Amino acid sequence: MDLKVYDNHLKRASALEKELNIKLGGIAQSMKDDPEKVYCENLIGAVTIPVGVAGPLEVNNKRYYIPLATTEGALVASVNRGSKAITQSGGATVHIEEVGTTRGPVFKVSGIKQAAWFKDWLVDHFKDLKKVAETTSSHLKFKKIGTRILGRYVYLRLYFDTDLAMGMNMATIATDEIVKYIKLETKIQCLALAGNFDIDKKPAWLNFISGRGRRAWAEVVLKKEVLKLILKTEATRLQEVIQAKCWGGSIMSGSLGFNAHFANITAAFFAATGQDLAHVVEGSLGVTSAEVVNNHDLYISVYLPDIMIGMVGGGTKLKTQTEARSIMGVKTITEFTEVFVAAVLAGEVSLLASLAQDSLAVAHKKLGR
Amino acid sequence: MDLKVYDNHLKRASALEKELNIKLGGIAQSMKDDPEKVYCENLIGAVTIPVGVAGPLEVNNKRYYIPLATTEGALVASVNRGSKAITQSGGATVHIEEVGTTRGPVFKVSGIKQAAWFKDWLVDHFKDLKKVAETTSSHLKFKKIGTRILGRYVYLRLYFDTDLAMGMNMATIATDEIVKYIKLETKIQCLALAGNFDIDKKPAWLNFISGRGRRAWAEVVLKKEVLKLILKTEATRLQEVIQAKCWGGSIMSGSLGFNAHFANITAAFFAATGQDLAHVVEGSLGVTSAEVVNNHDLYISVYLPDIMIGMVGGGTKLKTQTEARSIMGVKTITEFTEVFVAAVLAGEVSLLASLAQDSLAVAHKKLGR
Amino acid sequence: MDLKVYDNHLKRASALEKELNIKLGGIAQSMKDDPEKVYCENLIGAVTIPVGVAGPLEVNNKRYYIPLATTEGALVASVNRGSKAITQSGGATVHIEEVGTTRGPVFKVSGIKQAAWFKDWLVDHFKDLKKVAETTSSHLKFKKIGTRILGRYVYLRLYFDTDLAMGMNMATIATDEIVKYIKLETKIQCLALAGNFDIDKKPAWLNFISGRGRRAWAEVVLKKEVLKLILKTEATRLQEVIQAKCWGGSIMSGSLGFNAHFANITAAFFAATGQDLAHVVEGSLGVTSAEVVNNHDLYISVYLPDIMIGMVGGGTKLKTQTEARSIMGVKTITEFTEVFVAAVLAGEVSLLASLAQDSLAVAHKKLGR
Amino acid sequence: MDLKVYDNHLKRASALEKELNIKLGGIAQSMKDDPEKVYCENLIGAVTIPVGVAGPLEVNNKRYYIPLATTEGALVASVNRGSKAITQSGGATVHIEEVGTTRGPVFKVSGIKQAAWFKDWLVDHFKDLKKVAETTSSHLKFKKIGTRILGRYVYLRLYFDTDLAMGMNMATIATDEIVKYIKLETKIQCLALAGNFDIDKKPAWLNFISGRGRRAWAEVVLKKEVLKLILKTEATRLQEVIQAKCWGGSIMSGSLGFNAHFANITAAFFAATGQDLAHVVEGSLGVTSAEVVNNHDLYISVYLPDIMIGMVGGGTKLKTQTEARSIMGVKTITEFTEVFVAAVLAGEVSLLASLAQDSLAVAHKKLGR
Repeated sequence: MDLKVYDNHLKRASALEKELNIKLGGIAQSMKDDPEKVYCENLIGAVTIPVGVAGPLEVNNKRYYIPLATTEGALVASVNRGSKAITQSGGATVHIEEVGTTRGPVFKVSGIKQAAWFKDWLVDHFKDLKKVAETTSSHLKFKKIGTRILGRYVYLRLYFDTDLAMGMNMATIATDEIVKYIKLETKIQCLALAGNFDIDKKPAWLNFISGRGRRAWAEVVLKKEVLKLILKTEATRLQEVIQAKCWGGSIMSGSLGFNAHFANITAAFFAATGQDLAHVVEGSLGVTSAEVVNNHDLYISVYLPDIMIGMVGGGTKLKTQTEARSIMGVKTITEFTEVFVAAVLAGEVSLLASLAQDSLAVAHKKLGR
Repeated sequence: MDLKVYDNHLKRASALEKELNIKLGGIAQSMKDDPEKVYCENLIGAVTIPVGVAGPLEVNNKRYYIPLATTEGALVASVNRGSKAITQSGGATVHIEEVGTTRGPVFKVSGIKQAAWFKDWLVDHFKDLKKVAETTSSHLKFKKIGTRILGRYVYLRLYFDTDLAMGMNMATIATDEIVKYIKLETKIQCLALAGNFDIDKKPAWLNFISGRGRRAWAEVVLKKEVLKLILKTEATRLQEVIQAKCWGGSIMSGSLGFNAHFANITAAFFAATGQDLAHVVEGSLGVTSAEVVNNHDLYISVYLPDIMIGMVGGGTKLKTQTEARSIMGVKTITEFTEVFVAAVLAGEVSLLASLAQDSLAVAHKKLGR
Repeated sequence: MDLKVYDNHLKRASALEKELNIKLGGIAQSMKDDPEKVYCENLIGAVTIPVGVAGPLEVNNKRYYIPLATTEGALVASVNRGSKAITQSGGATVHIEEVGTTRGPVFKVSGIKQAAWFKDWLVDHFKDLKKVAETTSSHLKFKKIGTRILGRYVYLRLYFDTDLAMGMNMATIATDEIVKYIKLETKIQCLALAGNFDIDKKPAWLNFISGRGRRAWAEVVLKKEVLKLILKTEATRLQEVIQAKCWGGSIMSGSLGFNAHFANITAAFFAATGQDLAHVVEGSLGVTSAEVVNNHDLYISVYLPDIMIGMVGGGTKLKTQTEARSIMGVKTITEFTEVFVAAVLAGEVSLLASLAQDSLAVAHKKLGR
Repeated sequence: MDLKVYDNHLKRASALEKELNIKLGGIAQSMKDDPEKVYCENLIGAVTIPVGVAGPLEVNNKRYYIPLATTEGALVASVNRGSKAITQSGGATVHIEEVGTTRGPVFKVSGIKQAAWFKDWLVDHFKDLKKVAETTSSHLKFKKIGTRILGRYVYLRLYFDTDLAMGMNMATIATDEIVKYIKLETKIQCLALAGNFDIDKKPAWLNFISGRGRRAWAEVVLKKEVLKLILKTEATRLQEVIQAKCWGGSIMSGSLGFNAHFANITAAFFAATGQDLAHVVEGSLGVTSAEVVNNHDLYISVYLPDIMIGMVGGGTKLKTQTEARSIMGVKTITEFTEVFVAAVLAGEVSLLASLAQDSLAVAHKKLGR
């Protein structure tokens, strides 16, 4: 059957029900938004993902609730416990750096000499390229360009500031104009608008090392009493688990994720707030580190080099995702990112404490994680 | 406020609305399941994610429809076009290998000598450990064990066959029993039940190389006419894009994802069918490769070494996700995985053809991706 | 000019001197061995590399001197100081595991189905392959086989025990016979005898994770007094340098070497004892770790997953290299490897102590490193 | 025995001979240089490594002979054959980029806020740091600085142009002064002068991606006749071997070396010309790529992102190494590097052709590689 012939999602779901002899009532009736405005072809409705709320979590001296969409038992409880521990220890300090959304076309040249010439040409024409790019949107700034040569292929990595949006769409459109301009001016062939030196939605050392989207740090000094009463553990023990697991275990595994479960919080936060779920991949990169201070307290921090996140565009416009975002009460993309990163820290604190205290399996059994 | 005091999600959402002066009606009313059965603490309702359907897609001589939950414009259309191209070329051939769900505790020994002794002990006591593990569930088989030593840390990687389930929960509970047994018998200290040599929800070469969950391959020979009429490109051009982008670009980026956008299809399929969204990370690993054959046809294949997927447990039980799975009409976990992997192939075929034909930005503009 | 026409190295060097108007007297006269027996084409003589001796170093309760060929000032002094510190702390404990020398042909099949069939065929015919392989040398044992499929390529990784030799030559010849047998029996095409799944002389996570050649660990507990008097530092300070540099710094760099300078000792030891210098690459992989114990002592260990080393064959036969090896007085390949690994530990101990004590630049200035 | 008490290498060797009842005559008599000027402590003499000469090899329109010190049979013959193939195809085109020698201290701050402040401070004080660094040597230029923050650790990567020298010594001394200045001005503690964000003598994605020392490309179009007559193969076959082995095989291995044997040529060239042999590790990084052009010719290229090489300093001063360098007749460090990179290309061309033609094992048997 051709699903495109139906002019709305209810008819399409209904046709599919008949064809396959199944029931799709839940999906068909879960569509909360005007289907016309939804970016999903062959629409039949929506799936629903349960949302829990963790918090309050103190971040840079302000308190927030955090919406998390998940089907993993114990996750919201875990972030909630971490939030309590952090907040009672004085709150998390978070710092954000805007790196830029990247798009990276790949060109084909005649050989090394033209490649080297092209690399210089790009540097010399940066202002022209910037002008071309920035005509495509008033929300986009073209920041810088990285170039790599491999045989006859020349890879670019174009960095854009895309304001409140995660911005891959904007960046793609701007890159398209840049590519057209380059082709016109240099006669060099473009093999693909996206040549994986972006590198989008794949784990990569390039993003770990150079950053992508936003790069962020969060830290807290967990007090001895908090470690004991809320987290049921102690500083030296928790520190050793972090060293053995997040550093040693990940080293032995050849990983780019030196952490306990960044991906869990990233996935739940991204699903709740309408982010592109394929970017969970990049949010899993990064490091959790810890150090015993003042004899019995624990300094713990997370570093996320590659956060692709937005407050406008894509799934952020949907009704339930907009509501979920409103729970946080944030006003800027920086503040939005800060709360996310602090939530990641809270998730690390709690799971690592569970592991240190040998209570993970118990939680799994009880909360069905 | 303490969100735990409310005895159902409606009251909790309502309290939050008052406290924060916001509206959560969409979320509160989107809960389709009995909230009691949902694994999400501090529940306030659910977010909805639009679902589109791609297909039919022929896989191992049978045709399937594929549910995809996404907010990224053009994604369903893309998988749909890829499905058409594959199906008209005779369908995808898919092969699945069950590797096993892994859990990996980390122990602390007195030094190298005890570590070496412990490694031998584990080999010698495999049968005992198997017995201990398999008492925890009739659906679980303990398959094998990998051991690594680093200083005084000994990392295990326990492989389990978890039947129809993705199985992290089962594996964690079984590992807990194994750890208890080991501690009792050897007096060796366990630092953490999960020591990152599992390695769960992080991109890692260990999972790429040794596999995790399931490892799978899909292939198709795209006919010259299909390339021309459906994909608007030709074999040599598409082959070069795959080489330059998926191989060359990812090499230059230090990536573990040598593909175009495995993560997009993984995220959309996982969200639709109730998988753990943090496992999108692992589904992004793998390689797309291609070769011109018969002069003008294109052999194209995908390899996914690390697929964590299930048909029972966790989010798969939810109403809308159960409905979405019913669209596929699959009977076994192998068949379920086959359709997923073929959908990934379809997504690769279509996006790479768009890149080869320079139509990506156009699609983004039109379908708002 | 054609260098092959000259029938000995002196005439060749002399001809080159005239042609290029240069002097090669030092090189021409440095040839210590019968040139006929030297594996180097177009021979003109030899370069000389200074050799220093470090030690005694206590390893598994026996004391050794270690020959090191190097032009890097301070290196021998550094290993010497480390040896003293280790020996005065009771000596190093070293453990070696024989993994096997690997060679990995790549085959081309018709598609996934034949690939899967071929993988099973290899398992079923292991005994036949073993027989074929082991006819090529009485010093070679065929141990096991790893198989990976990527599109139409099938990669093998054949593991051999090559006795006292590093064994790449033996492994290549045995693999050649195995390949001939496979081609005959299966009619499957072999693209290359070495398909980089070996993976030889390149840094790779596969070798880090699965090991290659030999895998080894060395450890020592440095006493408080030794740390103070010989190493001029203290346990907590040295431990933090190791954590910040060897673990944190290497994590941030995307490295496979989580150590201070394994490569320095590997290069100097390999040059002195006639190893293949390209294998220095693999000897640079691995981890140095440390932990403060007994309040003020330091447990420190090294892990080398990929040591390609031999006592017979190749450069080990040369006169000066044979003499250098005799300095060690070792009888077995295990003992030989043990001393090497302990020397690596000694090098780590000393350089890291220098860094902790801020004396590296001073040493560089004084000893001209 | 204490080896330091002897006042020259002959007495030391002699004492060692008596102590251990061995003969060290070859080593003792191989010392060609004034031992006083040799950077090697506890000197007992020298080992000799056979040197062969490959060439002529045409590079950027000039012809060169290449000295290679090796004990691996077939290596010189292989580079020689590759040189012939390249030269008869019109010679190699090589391009070099000077990236800079790096040294990277690690500092410890109070937390994220001070880290961010410190990062800005470094940018603001670049000129001051440059002045401080450049007072240490007239041959050194301080080029730029990279900064990364992880918890309370701040990693720097300082890039220096070190003129004709490989320059680690110079860079270390300059870094020492920079660190002293920073400590004085900011009161921030330096944990170690070298914190592995350099990253020196370890394989690392940072060096692959950002480059280190020099970054270089070499290419040639091998003519159909050359492929047939000299290399005994053909373009399509050789191209497929390169794709299957250098790209596919290395992808499957998680390698940073997407080549056949860069390390072999690097090791032999470095040993012959007095480079630091531990830098062979970095020379093994990089990519070989190929493409069939003009129907039957083969465009082949190598990319080396991380070449640490020098013409002055360290082992380059030794007598035999100076002679070996004179064989090349190069005048600048750029020309010196160009010939090295072209030799790497020659080595790739020949070995890959052998693999394509199935003659590797034969060569090993005959030339005893």
